[in-house]
Amino acid sequence: MRKVAVIGVGMTKFGLLFERDLSSMAVEAGSLAINDAGIEKKDVEVLYGGTMSGGLFSNQEHTGSLLADRMGLNVPSVRVEAACASGGLALRQGYIDIASGMHDIAVVGGVEKMTDTLNTTKVLATAADVEREAVFGATFPGLYAMMAKLHMHRYGTTEVQMADVSVKNHANAVHNKSAHFQKEISVDDVMRSQKIADPLKILDASPISDGAAALVLASEEKARELCDTPVWIAGSGHATDTISLHDREDITTLKATVAAAKQAYGQAHLTSKDIDVAEVHDCFTIAELMAIEDLGFVKKGASGKFTSEGNTKVGGKIPINPSGGLKAKGHPIGASGVAQAIEAVLQLRGDAGKRNTGAHTALTHNVGGSGGTAIVHIFKR
Amino acid sequence: MRKVAVIGVGMTKFGLLFERDLSSMAVEAGSLAINDAGIEKKDVEVLYGGTMSGGLFSNQEHTGSLLADRMGLNVPSVRVEAACASGGLALRQGYIDIASGMHDIAVVGGVEKMTDTLNTTKVLATAADVEREAVFGATFPGLYAMMAKLHMHRYGTTEVQMADVSVKNHANAVHNKSAHFQKEISVDDVMRSQKIADPLKILDASPISDGAAALVLASEEKARELCDTPVWIAGSGHATDTISLHDREDITTLKATVAAAKQAYGQAHLTSKDIDVAEVHDCFTIAELMAIEDLGFVKKGASGKFTSEGNTKVGGKIPINPSGGLKAKGHPIGASGVAQAIEAVLQLRGDAGKRNTGAHTALTHNVGGSGGTAIVHIFKR
Repeated sequence: MRKVAVIGVGMTKFGLLFERDLSSMAVEAGSLAINDAGIEKKDVEVLYGGTMSGGLFSNQEHTGSLLADRMGLNVPSVRVEAACASGGLALRQGYIDIASGMHDIAVVGGVEKMTDTLNTTKVLATAADVEREAVFGATFPGLYAMMAKLHMHRYGTTEVQMADVSVKNHANAVHNKSAHFQKEISVDDVMRSQKIADPLKILDASPISDGAAALVLASEEKARELCDTPVWIAGSGHATDTISLHDREDITTLKATVAAAKQAYGQAHLTSKDIDVAEVHDCFTIAELMAIEDLGFVKKGASGKFTSEGNTKVGGKIPINPSGGLKAKGHPIGASGVAQAIEAVLQLRGDAGKRNTGAHTALTHNVGGSGGTAIVHIFKR
Repeated sequence: MRKVAVIGVGMTKFGLLFERDLSSMAVEAGSLAINDAGIEKKDVEVLYGGTMSGGLFSNQEHTGSLLADRMGLNVPSVRVEAACASGGLALRQGYIDIASGMHDIAVVGGVEKMTDTLNTTKVLATAADVEREAVFGATFPGLYAMMAKLHMHRYGTTEVQMADVSVKNHANAVHNKSAHFQKEISVDDVMRSQKIADPLKILDASPISDGAAALVLASEEKARELCDTPVWIAGSGHATDTISLHDREDITTLKATVAAAKQAYGQAHLTSKDIDVAEVHDCFTIAELMAIEDLGFVKKGASGKFTSEGNTKVGGKIPINPSGGLKAKGHPIGASGVAQAIEAVLQLRGDAGKRNTGAHTALTHNVGGSGGTAIVHIFKR
C-alpha cells in the first residue's frame, strides 16, 4: 500500500444553519479544502463523501452524483454511510483508494443537514437496530444512559465527572470559530440542565447541527510535490460490533473501538503512549470517558477521575477534543469524522491557534450508532 | 494494484418477497456466496454492501453494521450508495480494497427491500436531483421517456424495437430460476400494456423487486489457493455526469457510461469488440438501447435495428442480458449491480445452463439515476 497524506482541509461553520442546504455546505467545505491544498479543481480525481441520511433528512439519495455535479467535478464519487461514523468511513475509503494506486488526489468530505426536519430523533434511531431496539422505544440518549449507569455502578464514575467532560469541551470550543457553541459552561450548568435519559442531561449530549467538512488526500509523490506540510495517515482501523447494545457482553466498553484502535496502532507501529492529542467521539459525555479507556489512554474505569484532574485539557497529559468535540463543536453526523481529522491536521501543522498542543502524533476516533461501527485513524507530521 | 478474482457467488430469488426483510435476504445471499467459494465465514475479512435507501424503504440506516451483525461477522463493513448503481459501486469499492492490499478476502453484496412501503415512486425519485427535478414532478419513467422520445426522433428508433428488448429479456429469464419473471411475453403484450410515460409502457419498465446478491472477492494469491475457476476483474470504471437530465448537452447518450467504459476498457487493454457477453442496465428498454451504443457494441442510433435483428439474443453477435436483465430478472436496486456480476461469472464459468454463451470475456454496466453515475466492470476467465 502506498503512503497517503492530508494536504488540505476546509469546513463550514457548524450550527443551526437554517439558510443552508446539504449541497451548498458540501461545496463550501470542498472548495475550502481545495484552496487550502493549493490545487485546482481539475486536479481532483475522485470524491468520497459521508452522509448518514440524505434520504430521511433531505429526501435526497444519490448524493455522490449530486455533490460531484454541484462541485462541477465529473469524477467518480462515492457515498458511504455508517451512521455517525460516515465521515470517518469516507476518510478510510478515500485513504484505501489512494493507497491502492487507483487515484492520486481525492477530496474526502462529510456533510449532514439535520435541521428543517420534523423527526430528527426518529431519523437518528435508524442508526440503531430498528427491529430489535428502536421499535421498542430505544433512543440514543437512552442507550448511552444505560452505558453510563453501568459505568457509574461498576467504577464509581460520577455525574460531576461526566459534566467535567462537557465543561472542558465547551472551554476548548471558545477558541474554535467553526464551533456550534463558542461558549463556556460550568459544572453547575450541566448538573442543573434538563434530564434527557437518567443520568444524562441535555448538556451531556452533543447538539443537532448542520455542517460540512472536507480534506484533500494525496499519494506520497503528489503530496511531496504539492505540499510543504503534509500530514501523513500512519494508521487506519475499522471494526464492527453487534449493532444492538443488548447483544454485548459488556456495555461499559465498545469492542469496536478497541478493535479499530488495535488495527490503527498496529499499522502505525505505535501504542497509545505515543499519541499526543486525540479527537474522540463524545456524542455523550459518557462516550468520551469510555473512549479514552478503550483507546488505552487510561485504565478501564479510571477515566472519570482522570478527566476531573484536568489530564485531558489542552496542556494536560493527553489533550482530548481540543476542537470542542462533538459536544461543543457540534455534530452534523456525516461531517463529524472528517472534522475530527481536520483538527488533527491543524494540531500537527501548529495551525490551531489557542488550541495548539504542539503534537507530533494525533488520533481520531469516530463511532457509528452505539458502537456498531468504530473507525480510528492515526496522523503524523 | 493487485489482481482480484471473484471466487464465489450467491443470490436470493428476486421478486415480490413479502415474507422477507432486508437482513434475511442479505444473509441468504452472503451465505450462499461463501458456500459457493468453499470458504468459511471466519475467512471473510471485510464486507462491502450496496443499498439505495435503507432509510426511506425500511427505516434502517447503518446497514453495514446491521448486516455484519446478522451475518455473525465482526469485520469492517462498508455501506455504499449510488442509487441504482449501489451494487456496482459495492463491487468496485471491494475490488479497490483487495487490490490495495488492505484485505485478502471480501464479501461484496447488494440488497434492497422495496415492497411493503407505500411510497416507492417517491423514494425512487430521491435518486434524481430532488430540488431541480423531482419537486417539479419528474419521475424516472418520465425522465427515460424523454430520452426515448429524442432517440426516436433523431434516429428513427421505434416502439416495437424497444418492445423487442423486453421480449428478448423475458425469453432469457425463462431459464433463470432466480428471476422475478420466468415468463415469455410478446411484442403485442408490450405494445398493448399500460402507458406509464409516453412512449414507455409498463412492459418497457423493470419491476419493483425485493432481493439480494453477493460475491466473494479474493486477492490473486488467495484465489489461486482456494479456487479452480477464478473469474478475474480485468477492468473497473466509475464516472459521474450531471445528476439532472436538463443539464446535459445530449440526452440520447449517457456520458457517464461512455467515460466508465473507457476506463474499464483501458485498464483491461480491451475494446468493445473483445467482449463476448454483457449485462447492461435496462431499467427501461430505451436504457438498454442507449447502453449498447454507449458501450460501443453498435453505432450510435443503430441499436433498435440491431436488437430487432436478433443480434443481442443468446446465440447472437453480442448477447445482452442473458440473465433476463433488470427488466425480467428484476431490479431490487442495491442488488442489481451485484447480480449482473453474478451472471458474468456464471457465463465465464459455463454455469449458466441454457443461458450459456461460451463467453471468455464479459462486461457489466450499472447506472445510477438517469445516468448521474455509471459503473462498468470487465471480467475474464
